[in-house]
Amino acid sequence: MMRIAFAGLGNMGLPMARNLQRAGYEVRGCDASGAALDRAREAGVPSFECPAEALEGATAMVSALPAAQHVRSLYLGDPGALALAGADTLFIDCSTIDVATARAVSEAADTRGHGMLDCPMSGGINGAEAGSLTFMAGGSEAAFARARPILEAMGRNIFHAGGAGSGSAAKICNNLLLGITMIGVAEAFNLAEKIGLPAETLYRISSTSSGRCWSLNDYCPAPGPVPNAPSSKGYQAGFSGELMLKDLRLAMEVARDAEVATPLGAQAAQIYGMLDLAGMADLDFSAVIRFLAGTGRPEEA
Amino acid sequence: MMRIAFAGLGNMGLPMARNLQRAGYEVRGCDASGAALDRAREAGVPSFECPAEALEGATAMVSALPAAQHVRSLYLGDPGALALAGADTLFIDCSTIDVATARAVSEAADTRGHGMLDCPMSGGINGAEAGSLTFMAGGSEAAFARARPILEAMGRNIFHAGGAGSGSAAKICNNLLLGITMIGVAEAFNLAEKIGLPAETLYRISSTSSGRCWSLNDYCPAPGPVPNAPSSKGYQAGFSGELMLKDLRLAMEVARDAEVATPLGAQAAQIYGMLDLAGMADLDFSAVIRFLAGTGRPEEA
Amino acid sequence: MMRIAFAGLGNMGLPMARNLQRAGYEVRGCDASGAALDRAREAGVPSFECPAEALEGATAMVSALPAAQHVRSLYLGDPGALALAGADTLFIDCSTIDVATARAVSEAADTRGHGMLDCPMSGGINGAEAGSLTFMAGGSEAAFARARPILEAMGRNIFHAGGAGSGSAAKICNNLLLGITMIGVAEAFNLAEKIGLPAETLYRISSTSSGRCWSLNDYCPAPGPVPNAPSSKGYQAGFSGELMLKDLRLAMEVARDAEVATPLGAQAAQIYGMLDLAGMADLDFSAVIRFLAGTGRPEEA
Amino acid sequence: MMRIAFAGLGNMGLPMARNLQRAGYEVRGCDASGAALDRAREAGVPSFECPAEALEGATAMVSALPAAQHVRSLYLGDPGALALAGADTLFIDCSTIDVATARAVSEAADTRGHGMLDCPMSGGINGAEAGSLTFMAGGSEAAFARARPILEAMGRNIFHAGGAGSGSAAKICNNLLLGITMIGVAEAFNLAEKIGLPAETLYRISSTSSGRCWSLNDYCPAPGPVPNAPSSKGYQAGFSGELMLKDLRLAMEVARDAEVATPLGAQAAQIYGMLDLAGMADLDFSAVIRFLAGTGRPEEA
Repeated sequence: MMRIAFAGLGNMGLPMARNLQRAGYEVRGCDASGAALDRAREAGVPSFECPAEALEGATAMVSALPAAQHVRSLYLGDPGALALAGADTLFIDCSTIDVATARAVSEAADTRGHGMLDCPMSGGINGAEAGSLTFMAGGSEAAFARARPILEAMGRNIFHAGGAGSGSAAKICNNLLLGITMIGVAEAFNLAEKIGLPAETLYRISSTSSGRCWSLNDYCPAPGPVPNAPSSKGYQAGFSGELMLKDLRLAMEVARDAEVATPLGAQAAQIYGMLDLAGMADLDFSAVIRFLAGTGRPEEA
Repeated sequence: MMRIAFAGLGNMGLPMARNLQRAGYEVRGCDASGAALDRAREAGVPSFECPAEALEGATAMVSALPAAQHVRSLYLGDPGALALAGADTLFIDCSTIDVATARAVSEAADTRGHGMLDCPMSGGINGAEAGSLTFMAGGSEAAFARARPILEAMGRNIFHAGGAGSGSAAKICNNLLLGITMIGVAEAFNLAEKIGLPAETLYRISSTSSGRCWSLNDYCPAPGPVPNAPSSKGYQAGFSGELMLKDLRLAMEVARDAEVATPLGAQAAQIYGMLDLAGMADLDFSAVIRFLAGTGRPEEA
Repeated sequence: MMRIAFAGLGNMGLPMARNLQRAGYEVRGCDASGAALDRAREAGVPSFECPAEALEGATAMVSALPAAQHVRSLYLGDPGALALAGADTLFIDCSTIDVATARAVSEAADTRGHGMLDCPMSGGINGAEAGSLTFMAGGSEAAFARARPILEAMGRNIFHAGGAGSGSAAKICNNLLLGITMIGVAEAFNLAEKIGLPAETLYRISSTSSGRCWSLNDYCPAPGPVPNAPSSKGYQAGFSGELMLKDLRLAMEVARDAEVATPLGAQAAQIYGMLDLAGMADLDFSAVIRFLAGTGRPEEA
Repeated sequence: MMRIAFAGLGNMGLPMARNLQRAGYEVRGCDASGAALDRAREAGVPSFECPAEALEGATAMVSALPAAQHVRSLYLGDPGALALAGADTLFIDCSTIDVATARAVSEAADTRGHGMLDCPMSGGINGAEAGSLTFMAGGSEAAFARARPILEAMGRNIFHAGGAGSGSAAKICNNLLLGITMIGVAEAFNLAEKIGLPAETLYRISSTSSGRCWSLNDYCPAPGPVPNAPSSKGYQAGFSGELMLKDLRLAMEVARDAEVATPLGAQAAQIYGMLDLAGMADLDFSAVIRFLAGTGRPEEA
């Protein structure tokens, strides 16, 4: 039975680790937080404070961490996972981080003879639990081929975006667009409401016209048209405003360094930032429709 | 053979009128512009300067005019089409105008015992020629039932949005969203290019992920991924930046009167406005990707 | 004693009318609102529902109305003040309206042989009461010369901006800028606070550096540095967010028709619009600093 | 004669170093660029590649560097200036950098028993040459008192903003505001022009009304009203669009980390970014008025 180390046992990481177990892998987790370790052990994932212990006998490691500094620290720390691991380990980092860090870690892995993918995911907690995440992988064909069965144990749509850093690049670009379209949909439905067009009607028309998009068709921020969307369940996240803000801030940082004009992206980041300051960022990011309408948190939330 | 008056024989109106002819209707056009009349007559559509002549013996009238003041003038002028028409004429106004004007004209039609739909369309010149337009109709069920065969002669997707003004409302909300998503897609592809992610790759991933939208999937502003999109043909319009600007300005006017927050819509209107000032608004609206990249008009355009 | 008709006896108009009285003019007011008439009469200004009565024997008329439609109605109504007035009456319209309406009314006055100034003001209720308003007048040199003593009875800074419409143009441009600088100052002080720079320090430095502006130096939105600014008195208006929103919406309308790019103005209008939807627009417009900080209305307001 | 080391002999640094010489200090420069060293030596400033040589016998060091990484490298490098310098050296860093770096370097200096000020400046190349810079200093009273005569040799307005990091904080907040007001003024003057109000008239009125600000009164971006402003001299920088973009990007980074909403600042950063992509960022930042008008570079520039 193949042994996989899993670093980062948070709300995403733990259900992913368990899906690996269900698929027949032996998983050894690690996390810096004692509370996370307790939850993981309760859930039946043998877990350790120290990455070295998780890596014992492992031929692959998956990581799901909050930000670039945690990734640097895990992989390049003193000593980092790249140094601790056995020869030719496969590393799959599912964190959403900037392209430069992803490339730097990947190069370091390469130098030590390991395989590595930057492989951010989308699909949120629900996707992590259901094993239906989307993965966007950057790295060599060989590393991708090796990683595919592992990723298939945790997700449904698995893309090979290109060389090192490409997974991160794809995730950043996709979520930049997602953050914008959600606000666009919110503006359109708020306008519709005030000029007397029911949400159901706008949904019926735009979901099959040039306004159609995932934010409307699959995740409509106005309650009703999409019954299982967060908007129809009190805006419980789903994908929280906080996470969208984090992704947009990362996109803005990358865009600034790349000298790319992103006027709507910048404004979108500000809007989710104001949503956060208004105390609504724990809700699903589609609650931006209520922030823009000035109606605040829903009563039940 | 049913006789239909057609008011407004421009780039959209003339091919629509001819599609009505092809479907077996007798069409009599009218337009204030001599040049438009000449073109219409050459194309085999008997046409007149005066709406009264076009309306002779007609049981329906279709109009496709640039803005609200033209619609007011045609219908409510002195004398307007509502007064000139025979009893119980069916009026189908396909112009994109504000909701208040659409409702006012509709009420006036109602008062005189006519049927009326505000019925803006999307699909551009190509859709007008191919008879594949999308129509969003506002008005009574009875008027909609009567109009349906006429609309089917000119379009493919025909929505009944609700009572008077609903067609205009739906069009405005949809195009507000469309104007925003196109800029969002443009920003994402410009960013992808600068961070080394090929357009084809971002297309492959986002078109099946949460970033998917019509502006990306069907009309990608980066050349290549969608071979028949304007971007792949030198950004020839299609749907020009000028028309998108007009629609967004209308949406902003309606949103202002309705006191709705549309921060991205307002910014999008400004961006297409700057595109216009930069001399690029005759191009397809997806050329906003080049405006944002600072690369200006494509050489061939 | 010269008799002046005064149309519009609201929060601005009534104190202006009384300042005219104090300067020795005989004033006859008019207003469509019975409540306003009552208040005016109590304050000692003989007032009438009908402009015709106010105009009896008057050689000048001053108006201070909410928006362009009221101005059109007063002057060009059936019958309007231009028709009702005696020969060669001087009209001074202090309303803030669009340039096209100002010019149209002015031309109509001209045709009838009257003198006319579009003469919007700034300074708010305090300025109206103190007789310290700023006036920006558009119209002929002759009309301006005739109006000067009247304006001096109500204000302190009196500008002749140029021909008909120029007063409105100047007001619109100035307040566009004012609406933007106030948000800029708010952003800077919010940032200062979060990075540990006291408001007093930023005030001391920026008020004498390249950041200096009226919104900072004279009207600082952070409480403290300017003791008599609304920010230091619970954000009691002053110049309400509602009025700033009205002015910015007017500016956006004029800019749209003139095809001018105003990206920050458009965003500023959206921000004051969101402030309004958040229920804070009765406060002084400098309360935008609290809206942006997410801290809401001050407790005492 | 007191000996001062000067690190960073670029367009700002070299004239500053010469002003120190003129005030009677012995100056020893250093710079990593050979070309800069050549220019400095030609100008009569003995200069060295290595900071260690510049620091020989120096009791103070002034630095003027492009960005935070250069400051870190100079002061904390291996070995850095803090380690190389003699006991109780006074360090004055005039670079514009983030607050966190300023504080970190200051603490490191403190630990070694040196005095340190973060002391960014404004006034541009002209101010550097004329010795009329503005300095905003963060650090102890003692360090500020020691630095004052040195700063007075290079500048005119010298502020003590508070403890370590306060100088950087003040500069960032001030320039955030400056970047916004300049665009606001540009929008107002572009609008004025299109609605027929001459720039001179708007200047005359707004410079004494609530729209007044440094960007208008002292640096008007429309040519004419301020004869010695860059706008009246073909938009030759002054303070280039590139530098304003750099300052705004820094402000956005600091605001993001501090979780402060800066919607106009974010949009302003985007606009100067688009100006840069349009190839106009070498011009003075007030040329944003031409970018927004779509008129491009002035012919003579």
